[in-house]
Amino acid sequence: MNEYKFEDIKIGLTEKFNIDITEEMVNAFCKITGDINPLHNDLEFANKKGYEEKVVYGMLTSSFLSTLAGVYLPGKYSLIHEVNIIFKKPVFISDSPLEIQGTVIDINEAFKQFTIRYEIRNKNQVKVCRGTMKVGVLDE
Amino acid sequence: MNEYKFEDIKIGLTEKFNIDITEEMVNAFCKITGDINPLHNDLEFANKKGYEEKVVYGMLTSSFLSTLAGVYLPGKYSLIHEVNIIFKKPVFISDSPLEIQGTVIDINEAFKQFTIRYEIRNKNQVKVCRGTMKVGVLDE
Repeated sequence: MNEYKFEDIKIGLTEKFNIDITEEMVNAFCKITGDINPLHNDLEFANKKGYEEKVVYGMLTSSFLSTLAGVYLPGKYSLIHEVNIIFKKPVFISDSPLEIQGTVIDINEAFKQFTIRYEIRNKNQVKVCRGTMKVGVLDE
Repeated sequence: MNEYKFEDIKIGLTEKFNIDITEEMVNAFCKITGDINPLHNDLEFANKKGYEEKVVYGMLTSSFLSTLAGVYLPGKYSLIHEVNIIFKKPVFISDSPLEIQGTVIDINEAFKQFTIRYEIRNKNQVKVCRGTMKVGVLDE
């Protein structure tokens, strides 16, 4: 886990990691949230709607933003303030691994807060999700 | 599960449900995401940072937006396009149950998409999270 302090955060600082999305993760997300929507859980329904596989929950894909902030940028002293998410393409399990990359694009000294622009890409390097997050840095 | 079609979606339509956040859900979210940040997993660390309990992952709280769209508004034919999240207060397990409420505030006929304004409140009816989502409605 990274332990960037506020003074270590600079515009352009970038962190990146990969995640394998598995059927078990999709099932666990379903159990946590109670979101039993068939697009994510019923192949036949997904096929009927024009998808070759069940669609991975968008909010599961975006849950790795928790990891981006909490483990990588800034890591240990992270506290997420705001998140904006734009889903660009549906994600399938066969898209794994996803690559999550975030870059610091703004720093707010008054609030000890910085802004990350992030992108999530599938194994073919196609962008599936993008957006920004405002993250605070706790005192050490 | 609701099965609102696009033509059923009207400005002001509101759906609401409650969720109990448990230690097991926090642990499951940690396992899915790999976000091992101590604020969410180490009571002593959380205490040192001024919190009486471990802080529930913000992205876990917001994962119930998946349920809001996929089960309630519009339910079966949901596809989330965009999500904006503002975290207003830290959430603790003792804040359960959380109340998630969403209201339709805009409808885009061209994109078969509508906008939900949502609020998440703790058991004391204090707002912990708010924002908007753009959600598409799949053809039946």
